[in-house]
Amino acid sequence: MFRQRKHHIFFAAILLIVLTGCSCTGGIKQDPLPSWNEGAAKTNIIEFVQAVTDQSSPDYVPPAERIATFDNDGNLWAERPVYFQLIFAIDRVKQLAPQHPEWKTTQPFKAVLEDDMQALAASGEKGLLQLIMATHADMTENEFAAIVKQWLATARHPRFNRPYNELVYQPMLELLTYLRANEFKTYIVSGGGIEFMRPWTEEVYGIPPEQVVGSSIKTKFEIRDGVPVLVRLPEINFIDDKAGKPVGINQHIGRRPIAAFGNSDGDLQMLQWTAAGDGKRLMMLVHHTDAQREYAYDRDSHIGKLDKALDAAEQNGWTVVDMQNDWKVIFPAELK
Amino acid sequence: MFRQRKHHIFFAAILLIVLTGCSCTGGIKQDPLPSWNEGAAKTNIIEFVQAVTDQSSPDYVPPAERIATFDNDGNLWAERPVYFQLIFAIDRVKQLAPQHPEWKTTQPFKAVLEDDMQALAASGEKGLLQLIMATHADMTENEFAAIVKQWLATARHPRFNRPYNELVYQPMLELLTYLRANEFKTYIVSGGGIEFMRPWTEEVYGIPPEQVVGSSIKTKFEIRDGVPVLVRLPEINFIDDKAGKPVGINQHIGRRPIAAFGNSDGDLQMLQWTAAGDGKRLMMLVHHTDAQREYAYDRDSHIGKLDKALDAAEQNGWTVVDMQNDWKVIFPAELK
Repeated sequence: MFRQRKHHIFFAAILLIVLTGCSCTGGIKQDPLPSWNEGAAKTNIIEFVQAVTDQSSPDYVPPAERIATFDNDGNLWAERPVYFQLIFAIDRVKQLAPQHPEWKTTQPFKAVLEDDMQALAASGEKGLLQLIMATHADMTENEFAAIVKQWLATARHPRFNRPYNELVYQPMLELLTYLRANEFKTYIVSGGGIEFMRPWTEEVYGIPPEQVVGSSIKTKFEIRDGVPVLVRLPEINFIDDKAGKPVGINQHIGRRPIAAFGNSDGDLQMLQWTAAGDGKRLMMLVHHTDAQREYAYDRDSHIGKLDKALDAAEQNGWTVVDMQNDWKVIFPAELK
Repeated sequence: MFRQRKHHIFFAAILLIVLTGCSCTGGIKQDPLPSWNEGAAKTNIIEFVQAVTDQSSPDYVPPAERIATFDNDGNLWAERPVYFQLIFAIDRVKQLAPQHPEWKTTQPFKAVLEDDMQALAASGEKGLLQLIMATHADMTENEFAAIVKQWLATARHPRFNRPYNELVYQPMLELLTYLRANEFKTYIVSGGGIEFMRPWTEEVYGIPPEQVVGSSIKTKFEIRDGVPVLVRLPEINFIDDKAGKPVGINQHIGRRPIAAFGNSDGDLQMLQWTAAGDGKRLMMLVHHTDAQREYAYDRDSHIGKLDKALDAAEQNGWTVVDMQNDWKVIFPAELK
């Protein structure tokens, strides 16, 4: 009987440890953001999370409303030398070229096959759209997902010589984990293709497909040889960039974020929309200031231009992360 | 010391009860679906849930993939005499009429103001669209949500004399709760307006706004007097019905459901899409067979027509709920 009681007490202790895990680690002051240097950015994040999760705080927000939205390109993973999705399209054109002899003499495909980036740029938005449609449409959703996974498994970044999905930012991975540990729901809200991201975001970021918002082409339900399929059509459905981001957030989530994270003018409206809600908010921009470990670019960049949003951050007191000074490491591989 | 130990044991017991609540109630065989009569429908549901949640079963499905989609009109709440959203639009036209003297002589508004349902029907799809746009667009998302809430608080169903959001099906509420207790994520996938549902689905069904998929009009991000707003435009964005349902599911969720629940031909493609996935699946149709307690209609109905989907259910062995025989009660008020 006494022995049994001892077992119960032991069991209770274990349960207590399991149940109160969060406050325990809080007690021994484990750093939730170990790859972040001490400074305003880290302090702002932690103070915000503590305020909205403290039930006795006037800033308390119930878990269901703890929505955090993250841009992807340049915010969760790198976007240089060009958006990784464009590199995917280029690689895919080269792979498909034998079946398209006409591409040798037709722009923008000719430019891609000849690695003529100037001619590709000259083909403009129209050329880019042709490239996307030739590589992203006219197949089922399942087929496209398989192609994306295959590409990620084999392609390597030209500078870092790693798979593209290893070029994610370690400090942002910690931030995602920290927010989810505090009952935030973390979403991607990206100008990139929604179906280009979904095959890998759960494994890499812990963000499931239903929490990915992005640009899309139209799809059509069909029964092919008795099997229902969703076919990807060569037609734009939605562009989830700039003023499209609050629209995409509303469509998918139907709630206003209380925290939003971006790195370029494409994120400005998402941050404005987030800031305009009631109660405590966190708006953050990653400023690419580290040419040595990653890249340095802002106001004059063609990719990830950060100009108006940087001014808005200064005017409104939004948090700006100085990559060089605020981040101890950039990519997860540096920890190994 | 002994007293303290006793407290610990007491505390452990409380913890155990809290922690093992699910298995406890399982142990005493509490019925998870008390408003369902014993029969094939109830058995199919419970066997399905047990199979996909049993880790030792070949049919086991990890929690993240336990996606269940529910049609709304005629499946979670009633849809007679006409779709409740149409009644909302009619009520709204009457409310706005003083500001629109021209409506007295213009169809379809004249028909609405004169309660001439035949003339309204004669105005066809075009008339209906005009009615929707005049009552659903040209305001912000916040303004529209407030109008929907106000309507639900005051409007009463012509036959049951209750608020429309009390005319939800008690057996389906129990099904939603049962699935969520088994770590399913429950979604609405409705032909109805997404923003018409979101203001009340969390309170009524326990389904949060981010798990509502529906038809939509376009919205636009604007800064009005320094305040960012989302304005509803009088332009269709997406029709989430028939072949649109698998498209909407893919857009919002990015995973295929393992269980789908509907009641009309508008749900056929959602059930086909669900059925075509790998592994164990549950496809279910509510058949409105109870003219006395609710309504009886199927193959020849203008609203909630159930014809092709009923044939498909028979051919494919999908579960058909006979409302009259399978449901002990229809509406929650019957339990009071």
